[in-house]
Amino acid sequence: MTYTLGIDYGTSSVRALLVRCRDGHELATAVFDYATGHHGVMLDSRDANVARQHPGDYLAGLENTIKAVLEQAATAAADFDATMVIGIGVDATGSSPLPVTQTNQALATQPQFHEHLAAQCWLWKDHTGHVEAARITELAREHRPNYIARCGNTYSSEWWWSKIWHCLETAPDVFDAAFSWVELTDWIPSVLSGVQDPRQIKRGVCAAGHKAFYSDDWHGLPDKEFLSLLDPKLAALRDRLYERAYDASHAAGNLCDEWAAKLGLRAGIPIAIGEMDVHYGAIGSGVKDGVLVKAIGTSTCDCTVVSTASVDDIPGICGIVKGSILPGHYGIEAGQSAVGDLFNWWIDIVCEGEVTLHEELSLQVGLRAPGESGLLALDWNNGNRTVLVDQRLSGMILGQTLHTTRAEIYRALVEATAFGARMILERIAQYGVAVDRIVCCGGIAEKNPFLMQIYADITGRTMQVAGSNQACALGAAIAASVIAGSTAGGHADFASAQEAMTGVRERSYAPNAEHRAAYDELFGLYTRVHDAFGGVATIELGSVMKNLLDLKDRQRAVQSS
Amino acid sequence: MTYTLGIDYGTSSVRALLVRCRDGHELATAVFDYATGHHGVMLDSRDANVARQHPGDYLAGLENTIKAVLEQAATAAADFDATMVIGIGVDATGSSPLPVTQTNQALATQPQFHEHLAAQCWLWKDHTGHVEAARITELAREHRPNYIARCGNTYSSEWWWSKIWHCLETAPDVFDAAFSWVELTDWIPSVLSGVQDPRQIKRGVCAAGHKAFYSDDWHGLPDKEFLSLLDPKLAALRDRLYERAYDASHAAGNLCDEWAAKLGLRAGIPIAIGEMDVHYGAIGSGVKDGVLVKAIGTSTCDCTVVSTASVDDIPGICGIVKGSILPGHYGIEAGQSAVGDLFNWWIDIVCEGEVTLHEELSLQVGLRAPGESGLLALDWNNGNRTVLVDQRLSGMILGQTLHTTRAEIYRALVEATAFGARMILERIAQYGVAVDRIVCCGGIAEKNPFLMQIYADITGRTMQVAGSNQACALGAAIAASVIAGSTAGGHADFASAQEAMTGVRERSYAPNAEHRAAYDELFGLYTRVHDAFGGVATIELGSVMKNLLDLKDRQRAVQSS
Repeated sequence: MTYTLGIDYGTSSVRALLVRCRDGHELATAVFDYATGHHGVMLDSRDANVARQHPGDYLAGLENTIKAVLEQAATAAADFDATMVIGIGVDATGSSPLPVTQTNQALATQPQFHEHLAAQCWLWKDHTGHVEAARITELAREHRPNYIARCGNTYSSEWWWSKIWHCLETAPDVFDAAFSWVELTDWIPSVLSGVQDPRQIKRGVCAAGHKAFYSDDWHGLPDKEFLSLLDPKLAALRDRLYERAYDASHAAGNLCDEWAAKLGLRAGIPIAIGEMDVHYGAIGSGVKDGVLVKAIGTSTCDCTVVSTASVDDIPGICGIVKGSILPGHYGIEAGQSAVGDLFNWWIDIVCEGEVTLHEELSLQVGLRAPGESGLLALDWNNGNRTVLVDQRLSGMILGQTLHTTRAEIYRALVEATAFGARMILERIAQYGVAVDRIVCCGGIAEKNPFLMQIYADITGRTMQVAGSNQACALGAAIAASVIAGSTAGGHADFASAQEAMTGVRERSYAPNAEHRAAYDELFGLYTRVHDAFGGVATIELGSVMKNLLDLKDRQRAVQSS
Repeated sequence: MTYTLGIDYGTSSVRALLVRCRDGHELATAVFDYATGHHGVMLDSRDANVARQHPGDYLAGLENTIKAVLEQAATAAADFDATMVIGIGVDATGSSPLPVTQTNQALATQPQFHEHLAAQCWLWKDHTGHVEAARITELAREHRPNYIARCGNTYSSEWWWSKIWHCLETAPDVFDAAFSWVELTDWIPSVLSGVQDPRQIKRGVCAAGHKAFYSDDWHGLPDKEFLSLLDPKLAALRDRLYERAYDASHAAGNLCDEWAAKLGLRAGIPIAIGEMDVHYGAIGSGVKDGVLVKAIGTSTCDCTVVSTASVDDIPGICGIVKGSILPGHYGIEAGQSAVGDLFNWWIDIVCEGEVTLHEELSLQVGLRAPGESGLLALDWNNGNRTVLVDQRLSGMILGQTLHTTRAEIYRALVEATAFGARMILERIAQYGVAVDRIVCCGGIAEKNPFLMQIYADITGRTMQVAGSNQACALGAAIAASVIAGSTAGGHADFASAQEAMTGVRERSYAPNAEHRAAYDELFGLYTRVHDAFGGVATIELGSVMKNLLDLKDRQRAVQSS
């Protein structure tokens, strides 16, 4: 009997999950809420773009959750013993870089930088580097179009270089004090492995390829000449970063004596390469050729893989990176910038309602026919990540009358995100990537049948739900089981590990045939408005409101007959 | 010392106002709420388009309010005496036709029709005749393009022929029992004058010209050949209607003995021709060449007059009728279908707030710079009356982020109605109708400085507010003073009556120069979206959201500096 640990660093807390390698049984789990800041995030009242986290919380959470899980496991299964744990995998949000010292200590754990915001981990949703991001986009378009083509032609303020450059510009003392920078996904494995020199950290290709312009095609990170265009100090930093990044067929290291003693685990067990949460989440949900995993939460991330020798760029799909999800496969990542956040905006900010209002409104309009409200919305309140790759877009609601209710608008917002999801599926299909099956994970997928049915109806695809409600941590545990190997009681490869350790729930959502025609019609209208406001084309829109009213009249007539 | 009475029939109540001819002093006023139906309107739970009123309520209200006013006046001014009342004027909502018997009794006051919905007065906002309206539009476009050109190329379900035809189609018993039909504006004067035969009623050109296709250009009402295309029974009805309609230089009649006795007034005093409420409201607010009156309420009506010999059709302006407001002038009427109703929709239905929320939200965003929210809305939740003349349009809100508040959207809706108002002003100006001054009346104009300032800023025009808060009743009283004539203690003409009896308040709203540039920019964006969704043209919209975000960034930078 063998187990692996998956450690999942989220936005407000870290979770440890202990999983049985044989069948994916989740024996124990524990969560630790970060102590510092607001719900674990350090903010700055003068600048809404700031979102940082204290690295000390990561270490406290690591020790705390693993110990708790081992204790729980001993209670739950009399025959459990910590020596049965054969590996550890880690995932985290990203791009979340932190500055480290020459001995791989987080700079913020040094007394003189403890309170310094710039010395903390720069959380994925920190947008302070937006000016730098725009400048990187501009410079890359001019000087390195191959770099920028790989990430949808726009470099984000959420990513590695924008953040580090912004630190250099605004907190040069921190930049100068930092020997190197590390993604959180890589730092935790390096800590567990006892790495004392940042140059020795084995970095994952997942964060490197998606967020830091890393590619084998140009021998790793951006060349110094390009980085000098940003700032010569960034070019100099390159020597203190890394030459090569690794996929999950490699170990990040082995559990060092210090942490083995601290946690009560066997020293030397392998630590898997770190990946970003959604990528290990995709693995934990069963991603493989032909399977697309949708992680539906505050935002949405769509991941799939293709094992072909090469993949063409797909316009509007920001992330296609070899090995970023499964070794030997190109990882393809797309996403929607606001999904749960969009519904929360409506409920919390506009309606000023309690969380129960989500369900209340869903019940009010759940049985209505598509198009019956006459509404159409664009899901761009936080910009459009895929397929327009444009942060400078905004929301739209169309078709209101004097009788339109808050519940009808709520449904229109849910439908808008489903149309956005369909747009992504169609774009991927158009470029020859087959999707035979869709597996959803995340809180919304598990708890919101109203939304899931609309997604099925609008996309015309059955929506399955991942068996585990801790798909990210499970994916990390799967990676650990593979890196431990079958001889140690793990698995020989990801395919067999996923076969044994993942599954889908009994309840899935099949498209309602009666809703397809109306939703196809609405998707046609969505596409027109999407393309018009998204700048894809100049489009005749004078008939849109009339088409919506016609559909509304027809659907109401059907309903009342 | 002389006085006239203005009687104003609104949607839920009737008001009487006693006004001193010399200076417009309002000595007494009284309101009577209609007893029948919901807030005075008879509804049908099976059909939301139904809105009827019981004519018995009109008569009860007439007697009740006039008696109350005379009583009050006697208390307020010791020297007052009912013989000082030298005339009565009446205004009402319209088109609000009712079926009458051969002796000019309202059909609904006959016992067998008392409860019959079709026998009541068909209130202006009754939309049951929408199919008939579409058919009339179609037939007129084909056979009588000159008719339909006069009302913006679309005949409304709110108007005379749509309603009467719908009665014929759906309640033939009522149609057959009715000897004739009369607009409420004409019926009340005929009752006061003791007219016993509907063919003897002196009808006002205001309702006739704006709602019933009446014009001197084609010798009155539509010809029988055209009406036969609708239904031969309508052609037959024409003989029992009227040959000629009159402007306010004519009397509708003189107070009959029966009503003189009932009210305690002198028999024989003149009764002015009836006009629709907003038209007499324009007179009561001081409309004349170069003055535009905006009645701002649930919807908005803009009225002005030109005294030129002829006026060209102005595309998108539904109503240009000779004598419909002031004798000897063309009356020009434009309007917006939802103004107060739009704000009420947001507050009542979406926010589910109390009435106090209007002011609360206004205060939250009243001091923000234009464009600071990044929002842009279209004010079409109830269609667009002017300049698109299209009921099959709907609302739109654009530019939302995840931080957009209900207050910001509220302001965007107010701004949207102001952009719509500017669109009307620009269209009128474009066709050579000069507007030197704008006088606003109605509850919103009097009580909502937040809105009034935005209207001034967006239109770039000073907004004055009418002196009377009973502008419609005052206008009717003015008409009565003119028809009574100067020898009887009234006035020789409308110009001198308005000079003496109307005014504007001290507080007016001048455009804030600092807001003009941003609002011009926003109006440019509004125009693009307006024309695109309104079907005026195919327009590039890919830059709209970016322009809004740019403006927002600039305005926030200014605010914070």
